[in-house]
Amino acid sequence: MLESSSGPFIWHRRVEFCETDAAGIAHFSSFFLYMEQAEHALFRDIGTSIFPADFHEIRDHDPPFTFPRVRCECEYFAPVKFEQVIEMRVHVERLGTKSVTYHHEMLVADNVVARGRIIAVCSSHVQGKLTGCPIPERLRTSLSRYLMPSSESSA
Amino acid sequence: MLESSSGPFIWHRRVEFCETDAAGIAHFSSFFLYMEQAEHALFRDIGTSIFPADFHEIRDHDPPFTFPRVRCECEYFAPVKFEQVIEMRVHVERLGTKSVTYHHEMLVADNVVARGRIIAVCSSHVQGKLTGCPIPERLRTSLSRYLMPSSESSA
Amino acid sequence: MLESSSGPFIWHRRVEFCETDAAGIAHFSSFFLYMEQAEHALFRDIGTSIFPADFHEIRDHDPPFTFPRVRCECEYFAPVKFEQVIEMRVHVERLGTKSVTYHHEMLVADNVVARGRIIAVCSSHVQGKLTGCPIPERLRTSLSRYLMPSSESSA
Amino acid sequence: MLESSSGPFIWHRRVEFCETDAAGIAHFSSFFLYMEQAEHALFRDIGTSIFPADFHEIRDHDPPFTFPRVRCECEYFAPVKFEQVIEMRVHVERLGTKSVTYHHEMLVADNVVARGRIIAVCSSHVQGKLTGCPIPERLRTSLSRYLMPSSESSA
Repeated sequence: MLESSSGPFIWHRRVEFCETDAAGIAHFSSFFLYMEQAEHALFRDIGTSIFPADFHEIRDHDPPFTFPRVRCECEYFAPVKFEQVIEMRVHVERLGTKSVTYHHEMLVADNVVARGRIIAVCSSHVQGKLTGCPIPERLRTSLSRYLMPSSESSA
Repeated sequence: MLESSSGPFIWHRRVEFCETDAAGIAHFSSFFLYMEQAEHALFRDIGTSIFPADFHEIRDHDPPFTFPRVRCECEYFAPVKFEQVIEMRVHVERLGTKSVTYHHEMLVADNVVARGRIIAVCSSHVQGKLTGCPIPERLRTSLSRYLMPSSESSA
Repeated sequence: MLESSSGPFIWHRRVEFCETDAAGIAHFSSFFLYMEQAEHALFRDIGTSIFPADFHEIRDHDPPFTFPRVRCECEYFAPVKFEQVIEMRVHVERLGTKSVTYHHEMLVADNVVARGRIIAVCSSHVQGKLTGCPIPERLRTSLSRYLMPSSESSA
Repeated sequence: MLESSSGPFIWHRRVEFCETDAAGIAHFSSFFLYMEQAEHALFRDIGTSIFPADFHEIRDHDPPFTFPRVRCECEYFAPVKFEQVIEMRVHVERLGTKSVTYHHEMLVADNVVARGRIIAVCSSHVQGKLTGCPIPERLRTSLSRYLMPSSESSA
């Protein structure tokens, strides 16, 4: 049974000058950085890291895991300018055995400026190769707190 | 009636070191840069620019146009490393009155490493505001050469 | 006469994953982003913006100004990794009539990891061209608060 | 004795849209990417790579080496815009036992737009730690071909 959702993870990100382009607005690729950085902030918030400092060390037991992306997308509704602060609302839309789908709603002054989705697969370094593996139970429990009310976890 | 397709626009892009991340591979957001740069190369190839140097000049007649993105996505099949050369195969998947959908297939040594899509809307600067407008006829004709065999243009 | 210095402007910046490279550390170019973003934070702190939203508007009186860079440099003492937090200590090293030299000391856990310098020139948009101009008096006064104890302003 | 200089290494780089900023020009940090990419192109030109694919592999003999940066700088003379092509002229300004100083002159349509310098130190992965080491003899010989006429190598 699922824990009840504690709603989206909220994180704020100011648009930096280097992220704008000659059209005067945040470059469309920047939104993928915002989404990823919100996801990393969520990981810190639940007490872990998406890319542990010892990731490249070889260990037989309990190898560190990371989450390479297999698919991502973004829809843009309004341009965003230098120094505007984006409110990132992150939900876990789907929690599979090995994969997690994040849904990001991005707002500036209460207006939705973009919506995106990132699908990542839990992977660990086994004999120098990145291989998909089940999401560790403790992390699963933490991530399930951000499940969308209508979502299901498959465990 | 459409010109018959001249197949995809082909462009090559080497993965630069600044585009890799601590996992040792090209960062997932880099693929959106590759797709956009291939699109800009396609524009140069047909004799125009996606962002003319005089874009911010105010003109009553014949204002310059550009193509802000309204949606994009990418699916990843294999990691890509520093100095590998990606072959970008760009098709126009859909050519609407105002919008164009690009489909990008990305290969390294004949293996598909990623596939993506960018939807952009022809827009011009009218009284300081970016407004959607029909794709100019000459550009339409040029873009239609890259239509996928099964695609249709709506003009 | 100068106001007495209020010491460096302090700002913190976490290293993001997209800023690391395949060597496992923050890419050397990222430190210029950190320096610029600290400078922009300093500008917000003194109640202004280094690139006002109305920058491209044409105005006869009181045109907005910005600060293009004429020179920058960075010296690296230790690598910095994903999720480490850099303490940025920003001083105004020199305050000329038109130019300002920022000195940045960057620390992780009390160790200096890098030191850099950015020289920027106050400029405004006059008839569509960026032209150097004296730093406005109010901004001068604000910036002089961050002068290094040994520095001098030339006004 | 040194080989006589074969003049600068020449490489061309088009300014991409994602490298421009809201001021309408290439962001000042982009020039460090251009300098680094020219250096990597020079390495490919002399038949090697600045970051071999097997860099993270542990080997007792003949470990791969790379060139972390210890200092860099850039001076800006003119703004550069989207799609302009920069001619990069790379010289080796100084060739030490372990370090190399590159001097970059950047031109657009025969006008110098920027000049920069990068100092990098030959390093290899010994027991998981990056340690400075002498530049391998074969690489030294290749790099010395790009020495500035007035420069000296210290070997």
